[in-house]
Amino acid sequence: MQTVGTTPPQAESRTKLKRSIIDCDIHHYTAHEYYKDYLPRRYLESPPRAAGSGGGGHFNGGVGGRMVDAIPEDGSPAGSDLSLVQSQLLDPFNVEYGILTGDSFGLQSMADGEHAAAIAAAVNDYTIEQWLARDGRLRGSILVAKQVPHLAAAEIDRVGGRSDMVQVFVSSGAMKPHGNRFYDPIFEACCRYNLPFTIHVGVEGNGIHSPETGAGRVAHYIETRALRPQNMMAHLVSFIFEGVFERFPDLKVVLQEAGVFWVVPCLWQMDQHWHAERAQLPLVKKPPSEYFRKHVRVTTQPIEATPNRAIFDKMLASLFAEETLMFCSDYPHWDFDSPQLALPRLEEKLWDRIFYRNAAELYGLPDRGTGIGGKQS
Amino acid sequence: MQTVGTTPPQAESRTKLKRSIIDCDIHHYTAHEYYKDYLPRRYLESPPRAAGSGGGGHFNGGVGGRMVDAIPEDGSPAGSDLSLVQSQLLDPFNVEYGILTGDSFGLQSMADGEHAAAIAAAVNDYTIEQWLARDGRLRGSILVAKQVPHLAAAEIDRVGGRSDMVQVFVSSGAMKPHGNRFYDPIFEACCRYNLPFTIHVGVEGNGIHSPETGAGRVAHYIETRALRPQNMMAHLVSFIFEGVFERFPDLKVVLQEAGVFWVVPCLWQMDQHWHAERAQLPLVKKPPSEYFRKHVRVTTQPIEATPNRAIFDKMLASLFAEETLMFCSDYPHWDFDSPQLALPRLEEKLWDRIFYRNAAELYGLPDRGTGIGGKQS
Repeated sequence: MQTVGTTPPQAESRTKLKRSIIDCDIHHYTAHEYYKDYLPRRYLESPPRAAGSGGGGHFNGGVGGRMVDAIPEDGSPAGSDLSLVQSQLLDPFNVEYGILTGDSFGLQSMADGEHAAAIAAAVNDYTIEQWLARDGRLRGSILVAKQVPHLAAAEIDRVGGRSDMVQVFVSSGAMKPHGNRFYDPIFEACCRYNLPFTIHVGVEGNGIHSPETGAGRVAHYIETRALRPQNMMAHLVSFIFEGVFERFPDLKVVLQEAGVFWVVPCLWQMDQHWHAERAQLPLVKKPPSEYFRKHVRVTTQPIEATPNRAIFDKMLASLFAEETLMFCSDYPHWDFDSPQLALPRLEEKLWDRIFYRNAAELYGLPDRGTGIGGKQS
Repeated sequence: MQTVGTTPPQAESRTKLKRSIIDCDIHHYTAHEYYKDYLPRRYLESPPRAAGSGGGGHFNGGVGGRMVDAIPEDGSPAGSDLSLVQSQLLDPFNVEYGILTGDSFGLQSMADGEHAAAIAAAVNDYTIEQWLARDGRLRGSILVAKQVPHLAAAEIDRVGGRSDMVQVFVSSGAMKPHGNRFYDPIFEACCRYNLPFTIHVGVEGNGIHSPETGAGRVAHYIETRALRPQNMMAHLVSFIFEGVFERFPDLKVVLQEAGVFWVVPCLWQMDQHWHAERAQLPLVKKPPSEYFRKHVRVTTQPIEATPNRAIFDKMLASLFAEETLMFCSDYPHWDFDSPQLALPRLEEKLWDRIFYRNAAELYGLPDRGTGIGGKQS
């Protein structure tokens, strides 16, 4: 439950983590100067116009939101140097697989969806050639410009057949909640390649998006941070009640970095509303919590610290964490979660599900036998 | 935890409730044809232009959102007839005090704030003359047009000195989260008259408000219903991190009809964020949960049904329910909560706090000795 403050990974990793894990959220650096070699010439001189900062350039934590400790010695951006990612994260924490998520959220709030799609493709190519090709532990996320769903689907068709690209990746900031029929082409493409659809906190209220809360804009970074659950909640409710999981019975969805335990009361009340008003939604055939359990996964960082262990365990159980929760570190962001401190001590089976098995099953990652809790340690 | 479906109050109230209670949310009917005698002549022929329906005329439940059983025999609207409110709610459930909240939410999303303020004043006068004057158990809410804070403050000055008007009342739908400095004149007025500021679910995404979620508009009523917590969460977070409770140390806030247990993980994560980033907000001197406990109250309807009693009790404790939770029925809405079924059996002291004492203290209501659990039964 150590989820706040900057924690230099070195400090806790004097001994290598014995059991291997899967880290579902590693932000390699993917700004313009890094992906530009993969961009069509016409966009070369054109910085991503766009995003606009809804909240007005909120502070964030660390240095530009990143851990000071993760800045390479040559001063290049945190997350831009594979060798440092290896020595700070992959090696000491015995990361058997690490899912790269980049940090190109801004393209999703650009008015020019074609430009945004070009950036998404460039970032994907950069990730494939400069990261995945250089470390077999890494897997990539297919960034898409979801504001133009058919272009997003085309990008999934372009790289979705690769075994090293394991999910489709979008921001929580959106023009419409993600269950809206508007996005159908993206979900069709996800299902064609058996790729989870992952929603990661980002660009709420920016550019083409409406204000970051249903009650308008907030004034401080800490408010946007504390309000991540409300935006993600809109997506979860929309997925369930728009019947997405009946229309796409194989679709899996991952909710990333909006907190964890807000989901629990949300499931309770969705089940109640469904029982009361299911007549209005004939497509939604099962209690919402059943769809959640089968189709939705949640990542750990940042998980809420509770006042005591008893309620923490009850919340995990109410979340069906043994099936739904997956560890991620959020490296190299300032609020990085060490796998050794992110959660309190768990019984072996649950640890294995959260730190390894749930992600291995979701992403179809073969067991490499490098020391997985459940099997070998 | 019986929170869904229409439950005719008659069916359960064959015996009168022995202990008296306070009901914090009774929606008397306050549409144009009822308050028009109190409206300035220039607005008489002018129906409330305005609201616009964000989500596009969602279904709602019951008949127009109201219980069929609460429609008077002459066919007038549910909640329009005091005698029926008395015989269905106040008498059988031994309601010592009932707080009227009306249903004129639409004025809060009107572009013409002056017209909205005129409607608010008319509704307040109608409530005072036609309801409060006719039953000593009833108390009124000062409806204000919060989109023009100085007009809202003027309305509070006009009627806030009356002992029968016990709170200032606004919708959760808003142009800005309620902690924004924009609203300061309203809070100053609240403090002048020692009146709580009550936010009740309503008109999210309508008229002058941005879409009802930070991720855009949803398509069905059930989604707006399941997403009430996200809008209310924006207000709670904004109150805390904008330092409202440091600037107005006597202000009390009531969160009404957005659910209950979403507050708990929200408090957990706010405390974490505050510990991590309090340097950004020097005005916020204490952990958010401490402000919540002292300054914020939550009403019961609709409270989430949990999978088992153990976690229900833990959630109540984590909410500090003994200090913060207050019963309300939401009469005559279709999802009315009977005081006999709204919550599982509680130990005496907690029952007394939730069904009587917390509201009595908040609203300064003198004990009438009509059979309060904690004192006489």
